[in-house]
Amino acid sequence: MDITQFVSSSIGQWKSQRSAHHMIFSHFEAVRSAIDIVALTPDNPAVIELCQAYDIDPSQAVVPFQMSWEGESDWNDEVLKGSTILVPIPDPNSPDRGQLLRDRGYAETMAAAARYHITEDGVFVLITEYNRAAAEERIWFVNPNLRFRVSTIKTSDGTGVVTASFSSELRAMATP
Amino acid sequence: MDITQFVSSSIGQWKSQRSAHHMIFSHFEAVRSAIDIVALTPDNPAVIELCQAYDIDPSQAVVPFQMSWEGESDWNDEVLKGSTILVPIPDPNSPDRGQLLRDRGYAETMAAAARYHITEDGVFVLITEYNRAAAEERIWFVNPNLRFRVSTIKTSDGTGVVTASFSSELRAMATP
Repeated sequence: MDITQFVSSSIGQWKSQRSAHHMIFSHFEAVRSAIDIVALTPDNPAVIELCQAYDIDPSQAVVPFQMSWEGESDWNDEVLKGSTILVPIPDPNSPDRGQLLRDRGYAETMAAAARYHITEDGVFVLITEYNRAAAEERIWFVNPNLRFRVSTIKTSDGTGVVTASFSSELRAMATP
Repeated sequence: MDITQFVSSSIGQWKSQRSAHHMIFSHFEAVRSAIDIVALTPDNPAVIELCQAYDIDPSQAVVPFQMSWEGESDWNDEVLKGSTILVPIPDPNSPDRGQLLRDRGYAETMAAAARYHITEDGVFVLITEYNRAAAEERIWFVNPNLRFRVSTIKTSDGTGVVTASFSSELRAMATP
């Protein structure tokens, strides 16, 4: 599995159930959301702009995409809604790893570059370092219509895991 | 990571938060439990008996252990409580895979033999075939005091995932 196959398999609409474990309080949070993943062309102005913001030649970008989500948590009544553009930049010498540019992180609003690699059994692993925290995501396909995503948020010194979460993402069937 | 290291790292008391996603109903279930994993000696009569029930020479068993759990679900008021003996039987020619004998499965009460392997990045993968279902568990350590466990229950024909669940298991500190 390389990044092109992984992203291609992810394109579409997904119905997500996410459970977050807030470890300090042993609290459970349940989130239901709809996720929409759309392919972008490499010549999309937003993709080129994002590459330039990271000082990367846009010709290095492969399979850029946009991810949008809208959901509800049982933790509070706030509607969770957002959208981000993601641009994979594979390492020239190893196709199973590289950088993932984003115009917005999940946890903070500053631009964040992340490192990804794909394990031999097809798990996409993404590590993002923020100022005060580090996030790790592991995403894999159970079958073509079901993705799992396990995320951890750690303190930046790596000592503690603050939140662990698990999403099951089921492909939403096309309406006729 | 081989099976001996994996089991040795698992010995102890764990405080578990488990979220189950019942996919057909988009239902969330939250379970809190205490898990106790205790090493057994290979000459333990229960270990020898279990090997014999599977027609396996007890000298092939490595790091047998007992796992006990007691917990509560928000799904109903039933107390979840049980205990099982597990006996790894590594394949003679590949130390990262083998059989895991159990005297009781999670999903059914019949004895179940399961196949395990450990991936290059240290994920213990266990696949159990039942009469009407198949279960896959992926367990890995985030750090020495935190284990994650992702379980899926599929229909036996492999077409559908019925339940997906995620456990975060935090080592319970010894009381002074």
